[in-house]
Amino acid sequence: MPGTIRIALDAMGGDFGPECVIPAAALAYAQRPNLRFSIFGDENKIAPYMAAHPELKNVSDITHTDVFVDNHEKPSAALRKGKTSSMRLAIDAVETSKADCVVSAGNTGALMATAKLVFKTLPGIHRPAIAGILPNMTGTRTIMLDVGANVVADAENLVQFAVLGSCFATVLGVDKPRVGILNIGSEDTKGHETLHQASGILQQAKFPGKYIGFVEGNDITKGSVDVVVTDGFTGNVALKTAEGVGKFISSIIKAEFKTSIMAQLSALLAYGALSRAKKRMDPREYNGALFLGLNDICIKSHGSADSYAFSRAILVGATMVEHGFNTMVAEQIEKLGTQEAFITMSAENPATVPDVKTA
Amino acid sequence: MPGTIRIALDAMGGDFGPECVIPAAALAYAQRPNLRFSIFGDENKIAPYMAAHPELKNVSDITHTDVFVDNHEKPSAALRKGKTSSMRLAIDAVETSKADCVVSAGNTGALMATAKLVFKTLPGIHRPAIAGILPNMTGTRTIMLDVGANVVADAENLVQFAVLGSCFATVLGVDKPRVGILNIGSEDTKGHETLHQASGILQQAKFPGKYIGFVEGNDITKGSVDVVVTDGFTGNVALKTAEGVGKFISSIIKAEFKTSIMAQLSALLAYGALSRAKKRMDPREYNGALFLGLNDICIKSHGSADSYAFSRAILVGATMVEHGFNTMVAEQIEKLGTQEAFITMSAENPATVPDVKTA
Repeated sequence: MPGTIRIALDAMGGDFGPECVIPAAALAYAQRPNLRFSIFGDENKIAPYMAAHPELKNVSDITHTDVFVDNHEKPSAALRKGKTSSMRLAIDAVETSKADCVVSAGNTGALMATAKLVFKTLPGIHRPAIAGILPNMTGTRTIMLDVGANVVADAENLVQFAVLGSCFATVLGVDKPRVGILNIGSEDTKGHETLHQASGILQQAKFPGKYIGFVEGNDITKGSVDVVVTDGFTGNVALKTAEGVGKFISSIIKAEFKTSIMAQLSALLAYGALSRAKKRMDPREYNGALFLGLNDICIKSHGSADSYAFSRAILVGATMVEHGFNTMVAEQIEKLGTQEAFITMSAENPATVPDVKTA
Repeated sequence: MPGTIRIALDAMGGDFGPECVIPAAALAYAQRPNLRFSIFGDENKIAPYMAAHPELKNVSDITHTDVFVDNHEKPSAALRKGKTSSMRLAIDAVETSKADCVVSAGNTGALMATAKLVFKTLPGIHRPAIAGILPNMTGTRTIMLDVGANVVADAENLVQFAVLGSCFATVLGVDKPRVGILNIGSEDTKGHETLHQASGILQQAKFPGKYIGFVEGNDITKGSVDVVVTDGFTGNVALKTAEGVGKFISSIIKAEFKTSIMAQLSALLAYGALSRAKKRMDPREYNGALFLGLNDICIKSHGSADSYAFSRAILVGATMVEHGFNTMVAEQIEKLGTQEAFITMSAENPATVPDVKTA
């Protein structure tokens, strides 16, 4: 049996708090008995759910706090709350080596800002990125990054995102992850100059993935690529567009199956096929945005995640810890820094950051 | 009966050429008997389809040419073919006032380049844009622009896109189109500075739409907005991501309905509901990318469009002609240019174009 993996849980984040987080821990524990939990939040609210899951008792410790980061709080306000919020305590538990990774469904901006402040970025990484996990047509998963941490990204950032994303795909079991840069055409003549610079480097650089060139929006769900590299603005728009289209189509199918008694009957019969289809696209399976590029592992579960979805986020974190994700990234970034293509680019194209407002 | 509307048709564009274009003309004519057609292409290939649609004989003229723009030809190569290609002849027919608008399924880059060269941009418009039409959850249509003509757009371009888009939505029958700028958060603190400049103007400017602020990727299909304004890079990624997700979901549903005899039987019974759902999302209904901001009207039909889809593109063109779309835009752009907010912005933020490669 592999050694224990210690998960710090912010029990108060997201729409449901302990009602979601504690059963999620139980679900994850059922899958991986080597998990241990440090749980931070309101003891009184946590207690009934712990009582319902006695199997967690001996593998968990609970630290009480009645300070919580609100879902709609600005990152700056969250930071001002000091070191006693459930989110901050969970993050600090990792920083002080009492846990191996942190999982929270709390608000993205606050979690990102706090994790950055406490964990700091990995040596050599200029900017951490948020990675999203999406299902695709071939039944595998597509990693897309950045999906929101950096509104702009220069060529060097993009190359580092490629390394981060391919290390993560490797951890998920992809042998030689195919990496593409998101553009508006696969030809070499289109798109921002920055993308062409990054593409030039990735064509020559040695890194854990295989660079396949430019990809387009429809490649995200096609399964033609394992890692989609983009800036946080474009990635965020693409991710939310994809979510929106998913909801749109499912709402239309639901509505049409309600139009008549006959349609309702047919829905009953088609239930099996439709629910299998739904399961294959279930966003809960792909829950967990990853803050990649920090010195410690921080997983953001979706705020509206249920227990099952949150348990998936815990398992993603455990897998990253198990595979030594950050050590792998640090090694690869160091290797990259010694490669001629990368050094030449960095010298020729000093990082430039266009006009931008961030949260 | 309204006056006749004369459509110039490039019969040789797209995957199917006259096989698609001539029956499409017949379908459009059945809906609008005031249409007249000028058809450009290979007479021998066109003839059998014209014979199958004798109703078109008296309302069409055919100009023979055996020069065609290939689907994969670069715009520069298409332009070098001179003035005898079916695409160019169709465009020239509008320029010389023999037709009111042109519809082609030929390659986007070549069509855009040729239309720009021949028609030129409307007075006051700095850059024309490509608009896409998408279905949404409320059963109406969402216009998104730019979806690919301009890889970058400054604040002034974005404001003009808002005017172009809202004029187009008006033509489609929306009373006071709700216009949003695509961003990665609805707050005022996020996203590119350019978006904030454009947002500032639209909050004050008088134009045919109603500016509702920033929208996100999921708003595109939500129906919370009639016009989504963005640069051509982001818009193209969003459009192709949406197309990709649509294909992904439909492929999964199809596959699941084939897994067993029982599933196949249930598919038969569910056929009605599923095909109604499919129809509501049918991309053919929304076929036709519009080149907005030129002195004449040019509609790009999807290259893989069938006759029905192509007929929808013809009808969009006819509707724009009927409502005097370009006159409306020219008036609104002129009005906008006299408004204080716009003048101040233009002076404070001279157009800047970051590093970019275009086709």
